[in-house]
Amino acid sequence: MSFSAQIITLFPELFPGPLGASVLGRGLRDQLWSLDAVQLRDFATDRHRTVDDTPAGGGAGMVLKPDVLARAIDHVSPPDDPRPRLLMSPRGKPLTQAMAHELAAGPGAVIVCGRFEGVDQRVIAARGLTEVSIGDYVLAGGEVAAMVLLEAVVRLIPGVLGAAESHADESFEHGLLEYPQFTRPQSFEGRDIPEVLTSGDHGKVDKWRQAEALALTRVRRPDLLDE
Amino acid sequence: MSFSAQIITLFPELFPGPLGASVLGRGLRDQLWSLDAVQLRDFATDRHRTVDDTPAGGGAGMVLKPDVLARAIDHVSPPDDPRPRLLMSPRGKPLTQAMAHELAAGPGAVIVCGRFEGVDQRVIAARGLTEVSIGDYVLAGGEVAAMVLLEAVVRLIPGVLGAAESHADESFEHGLLEYPQFTRPQSFEGRDIPEVLTSGDHGKVDKWRQAEALALTRVRRPDLLDE
Repeated sequence: MSFSAQIITLFPELFPGPLGASVLGRGLRDQLWSLDAVQLRDFATDRHRTVDDTPAGGGAGMVLKPDVLARAIDHVSPPDDPRPRLLMSPRGKPLTQAMAHELAAGPGAVIVCGRFEGVDQRVIAARGLTEVSIGDYVLAGGEVAAMVLLEAVVRLIPGVLGAAESHADESFEHGLLEYPQFTRPQSFEGRDIPEVLTSGDHGKVDKWRQAEALALTRVRRPDLLDE
Repeated sequence: MSFSAQIITLFPELFPGPLGASVLGRGLRDQLWSLDAVQLRDFATDRHRTVDDTPAGGGAGMVLKPDVLARAIDHVSPPDDPRPRLLMSPRGKPLTQAMAHELAAGPGAVIVCGRFEGVDQRVIAARGLTEVSIGDYVLAGGEVAAMVLLEAVVRLIPGVLGAAESHADESFEHGLLEYPQFTRPQSFEGRDIPEVLTSGDHGKVDKWRQAEALALTRVRRPDLLDE
């Protein structure tokens, strides 16, 4: 059983989109993971295929109706579905590299993409949706957020990245930002590659990189060091 | 002069992609903002159109060459270009709603999408690239991250959201997560809309929503209250 992603969205035509490119797309074609997107509107029951209504208590925007979304969820994810049910939302638990590893080790994910002002709270509770946020900003909908989550997760599935593209030294894998990188040419606009990196002394290279990663994290993200 | 976004990427065909849908796509067609993507590989000078090379000092992956990327940047962004030059990178400054507002009020952005293990540090310095991170996780490339940044920014440009889709009450606009939303039907699987929201008493509704937003933020994101 490979990782199975199921999207519920008003814009199913946006998928796979960027997830069909590069290594993730190769993984999709090689069936290392699968992706399906359903149109939420198909689960409306009225003539106008209504999916939203005005917020109770007043206010701007529209809210996704609980009954329509519940029907969509029940259609793609029966009660015994082992996959976590996620709702992309700025109110959610922040996505981290640790969460990405956890999801990548699991059976997949059912991902609801919000739109408009939000989703009726009762369907979040009734269907056990876990709200996940990709960052402290607001998007127009959950579709690109779902792509971010899947990209972070799918690249960790064994076989998706080639052997040459290890992620052992990446940002967050050791609680630090990654050290600076350099490549040829040796001299670029009068700036040389730091000597230590061309010394051939692997011990010195490792030490320099560790010190650089720590220094960068201290300046840019002291919050990571506190954790 | 409307907001002008310029992308430098190995996958220009992914744009506008999701940015062409819904309200952002309508804003693009109405010329409330513009988007152009160039193929980084077009700025390579060798027969194989090489854009990357192995990391100095060893290690997994490949690093984007400084000379090729510098040529691409110079082509799309002359020295007097008033737009900030951004590099999507997990090492960067975290994107926030405040940063999105700041960018939305400006002339646009030149956005470099990284791939592989990273970008040569010397071109980051020589071209004054500001590294921006959309969250504490690692992606396969900067393309979806650039879409996230643009989606967060462009929806704040006046006229992009309709009058009915205000963002005054959203998460992060007052330092809090958003209160829960409800809409019809009045009863969903035995769960009713909270009585206060159907009372018609706007003062009580506002008070309830404020209390709910604070309570949710306290449970899920106490870090936001510390700020």
